[in-house]
Amino acid sequence: MMLLEEWIRKYGTVKDGDVLKVDSFLNHQMDVSLFDKMAKEWKRLFAGSEINKILTVEASGIGIACIAALEFGCPAVFAKKNKTRNIAGEVYSARVKSFTHGTTYDVIVSRDFLGPDDKLLIIDDFLANGAALEGLLDIAAQAGAEVTGAGIAIEKVFQHGGDRIRSRGVRVESLARIKAFGPDGSIEFMH
Amino acid sequence: MMLLEEWIRKYGTVKDGDVLKVDSFLNHQMDVSLFDKMAKEWKRLFAGSEINKILTVEASGIGIACIAALEFGCPAVFAKKNKTRNIAGEVYSARVKSFTHGTTYDVIVSRDFLGPDDKLLIIDDFLANGAALEGLLDIAAQAGAEVTGAGIAIEKVFQHGGDRIRSRGVRVESLARIKAFGPDGSIEFMH
Repeated sequence: MMLLEEWIRKYGTVKDGDVLKVDSFLNHQMDVSLFDKMAKEWKRLFAGSEINKILTVEASGIGIACIAALEFGCPAVFAKKNKTRNIAGEVYSARVKSFTHGTTYDVIVSRDFLGPDDKLLIIDDFLANGAALEGLLDIAAQAGAEVTGAGIAIEKVFQHGGDRIRSRGVRVESLARIKAFGPDGSIEFMH
Repeated sequence: MMLLEEWIRKYGTVKDGDVLKVDSFLNHQMDVSLFDKMAKEWKRLFAGSEINKILTVEASGIGIACIAALEFGCPAVFAKKNKTRNIAGEVYSARVKSFTHGTTYDVIVSRDFLGPDDKLLIIDDFLANGAALEGLLDIAAQAGAEVTGAGIAIEKVFQHGGDRIRSRGVRVESLARIKAFGPDGSIEFMH
């Protein structure tokens, strides 16, 4: 998606450790008019596929997922990263190791909100080593839900999570695919 | 807003300690068609007021804030609850004591995304003792941003945070105002 690549080039910055900061429009300040165009692109890509629920993970997936849910005309569910008093007792859970933050956490979804009737589109802002997406796929499997596909904003192709997950037969549609970061902070996209 | 009250009566459950669980449509599974109607109601209520940015706090405010931002035609910013490697070094921060979870945490917003030119609509799912909203007001003040008002989904009037904040001169528009919970789990709304 050219527009997203343009935004990344214009407003993104590359930090040490292959971290791409896009917090001016994607995951701290959120440009919802861009999210709307991303949602329409996923809608076009998944036209004719059955999707009745969006699944994402807090916090940075939620905004994109909600705009996508509005476009797909279905509810969105976000996996929580910490079990709190506010969540139902019965949950699906999976362990995730975050590349970006160097931490391990559990993602949790109440059993009330995912089940065998669900045809899921999983949405997230980043796909790098694939740990978060695999956690959500694990939760979908526990629920007996079908995963129609995954819609990712930015995929770091060189970290190979996307390849591994596609090789399992999951359809992954990333709107911007980064092949490499240059030593000068430049960004090379894959088309 | 009658529709939101209807949803609360139909799908909400009252738990011990005056906790209202609305996670089937508001803050775990998210009914974005309802969010869209809530956004349109805030748009009607704040018609003629200047708003160029939505401010909320992760995680449960984000979905509502993004749908509202789409309606108001402006970006949304969410305050983060933990400082991570991914956030800019320079931040505004405020301490918040959560009534629901019995915890204290910092909310943080990058200085890059709030400033004196901003006219904010603060959005959140709940207003109870007012601590989260006061944290966001504090951050707005640090940024020199103007707060046009706050749009809240559900206000627990009997916990008096709303009164205290309105008495500071902040316009607070809550779409459902709960006066009391009955011992039988019933919900009394204030109109």
